[in-house]
Amino acid sequence: MEIGEEIEKANRKAFDIMNTGNAVLVDFGLAGKVIPGMKENYILHAGPPVEYRNMIESMKAAVQGALVFDGKADTIEQADRMARSGDFVFKPCHELSTVGPMAGITTPGMYVAVVENTAYRNRTYCNLHEGRGAILRFGATGKEVIDRLHWMNDVMGPALKESVRKKPIDLKAIAAEGVQMGDELHQRFKATSLLFLTSIASSLLEQEKGMEVYRFIAEREQFFLNLSMPAMKAIADAADGVKYSTLVTRLTRNGVNFGIQVSGLKGKWFTGPAEVPKGLYFMGFSQNDAAGDFGDSAIMETGGLGGMASAAAPAVTRFVGGNAKDAMRVTEDAYRITYGQSRDFQIPSLDFRGTPLAIDMLKVNETGILPSINTGIAHRKAGIGQIGAGISHPPIEAFNDALREFAKVYGL
Amino acid sequence: MEIGEEIEKANRKAFDIMNTGNAVLVDFGLAGKVIPGMKENYILHAGPPVEYRNMIESMKAAVQGALVFDGKADTIEQADRMARSGDFVFKPCHELSTVGPMAGITTPGMYVAVVENTAYRNRTYCNLHEGRGAILRFGATGKEVIDRLHWMNDVMGPALKESVRKKPIDLKAIAAEGVQMGDELHQRFKATSLLFLTSIASSLLEQEKGMEVYRFIAEREQFFLNLSMPAMKAIADAADGVKYSTLVTRLTRNGVNFGIQVSGLKGKWFTGPAEVPKGLYFMGFSQNDAAGDFGDSAIMETGGLGGMASAAAPAVTRFVGGNAKDAMRVTEDAYRITYGQSRDFQIPSLDFRGTPLAIDMLKVNETGILPSINTGIAHRKAGIGQIGAGISHPPIEAFNDALREFAKVYGL
Repeated sequence: MEIGEEIEKANRKAFDIMNTGNAVLVDFGLAGKVIPGMKENYILHAGPPVEYRNMIESMKAAVQGALVFDGKADTIEQADRMARSGDFVFKPCHELSTVGPMAGITTPGMYVAVVENTAYRNRTYCNLHEGRGAILRFGATGKEVIDRLHWMNDVMGPALKESVRKKPIDLKAIAAEGVQMGDELHQRFKATSLLFLTSIASSLLEQEKGMEVYRFIAEREQFFLNLSMPAMKAIADAADGVKYSTLVTRLTRNGVNFGIQVSGLKGKWFTGPAEVPKGLYFMGFSQNDAAGDFGDSAIMETGGLGGMASAAAPAVTRFVGGNAKDAMRVTEDAYRITYGQSRDFQIPSLDFRGTPLAIDMLKVNETGILPSINTGIAHRKAGIGQIGAGISHPPIEAFNDALREFAKVYGL
Repeated sequence: MEIGEEIEKANRKAFDIMNTGNAVLVDFGLAGKVIPGMKENYILHAGPPVEYRNMIESMKAAVQGALVFDGKADTIEQADRMARSGDFVFKPCHELSTVGPMAGITTPGMYVAVVENTAYRNRTYCNLHEGRGAILRFGATGKEVIDRLHWMNDVMGPALKESVRKKPIDLKAIAAEGVQMGDELHQRFKATSLLFLTSIASSLLEQEKGMEVYRFIAEREQFFLNLSMPAMKAIADAADGVKYSTLVTRLTRNGVNFGIQVSGLKGKWFTGPAEVPKGLYFMGFSQNDAAGDFGDSAIMETGGLGGMASAAAPAVTRFVGGNAKDAMRVTEDAYRITYGQSRDFQIPSLDFRGTPLAIDMLKVNETGILPSINTGIAHRKAGIGQIGAGISHPPIEAFNDALREFAKVYGL
């Protein structure tokens, strides 16, 4: 078989896996107990590999806060010293079947959601959603942040565990419904968070602290973010490691670098500098204040949502200064660099055409079109939190490098 | 002032009232107690006036079921005799500040929602939502129908009353949010029903039977129908009775006739035959089985939603056999016969253009374009229930008659 045919065959296979995969919320538990391979001295972070000393301020701060939360350090200062000591191993979430929004810091003592792609039997994990404002994932580490994390671990996590063990939740079905309701599932989760909440309400509210948890979720419009991410990862992971496939299975950023992975080049990172997102800044802030793009949340675009589904959510594009036509254009561009269209995620205003699914690194190299990532923007300095929302792109170098490596491995 | 100027001034005024009105769910209570002017021997029905003997089968059956439910008759047969006896007065819901979906039968013993347009201090009323399947509003009168109505009166109504008295709910805000989420609010209420449920959850779930009520609502995707209708009526009623205004304040059907009212001709019905809706019939049914269009739910189109907002909800148009372009066209046509655009109901895919608001009977007469009404389709025979969903139109005669009357009154 010619190499072109091999690639087409492999991409068809990887695409079909991505298109038919599903994602069911089956459990919650402590990261140290439920994530295979997780060790007591591991600290997981968003994006491709990065050492503690090279992390951006917000991510460093999140590491410090997490060590205090985990009871390993008494103060932020002590946590910083410990993080530098070499006693901890820093690993990308992605390398342990995990994803985390923004800093993505996940320690063994944190509660995580457990999602299963029941079609392909693989599982993924993600920490719980804190909300907006002063939150660990943006590098805030004050008392209220740590206290909230403890409540999430002690009350919310166990309650959700009891709920979903009784009644697992089909996350892909909720995501698909959400796309019909104006969510693109990277910035906007209004519908999906409500759909999720209503799905678990019965089993949650039977519990003593159910109402407390119900209220916490009801007040957080992006609650579904931390569930949709492991859902998309569960689907993308199943399509990883298909020999000859040029489809992208990971897009992620650590604030310094943007990393991608390609199905046929399993486990290899291709990176370039993380952009400072362009977008709308909250009053009093500008692009000068912004950190480089970070977070594993670009897994949403990897799975055909977020920026890829812009046409389904003009409200998001409008928020960052564009109009409905711009939103349409972003999705139209995405069709030019993807293998196919999603069976399950359909855009009403495009007559229910499936969203652009499965970025083909060959097409990115060929057209020069980069996927648009809808993203939150964090302040450069730790603890200030979100200062805007906008759009970022992966670096073309990462795609060029992936192509070179592909040529080397497969003799393209 | 010339008549043209008088009309323009009046329409501007009526339009502004309709555009700036709001709708807050403030209470629930028994129709006989809370609806001003409601008497013990009144039976309210949907649409323009119609005598019992002339009602369609489904509406007659709903009257019978309501008399049994109210404890006035022991059997359906006895109820039928009583209804024919002349002891009861049949009145359009609309004439008592009330609306009712489909048959719209409202008796003094039924719980109703109380909605206030707090900007103009008027109140409106609507019975509670039963769900789909065998339900009174489609003329079903079996034991489970009557039992459900009793539960709604004994458990749900009082629970909702306690909730909203503690925390009134801004229905217009929910409707506006829903339009951003793919609801057009005549057929599709997915988002708005969820938004409503989440809004009242806290105050509802504090109550002993709160969870029972929560579940009932969560299982009914169109629950918000019976709340959005009095909301739209509260807004439209405030704009009624503006001298010289040619804007339509009521669109409603009783299965035999379609009736309209015009702001400047307060209280006068203009009618013509009710269409059999065109649309998609459930398996095994066709247009031959369908009843004439009925229900006060065209109040949604009166207020700039439903068919007027088709472009916001391509899923609805698709369901009745059209595509996204057809949905867009329906809304485009509606702009040609309305006075202006809604400030609060915005269509994302049209760059957040306001929905077409306030049908001008002059423009309908001039263009011949009739508003499209999104509607459920009932079987001709009582008790079979919904057999499809589709689109209907008011009769042009009603608009012609209104114009003639307007000319007579104002010397046009």
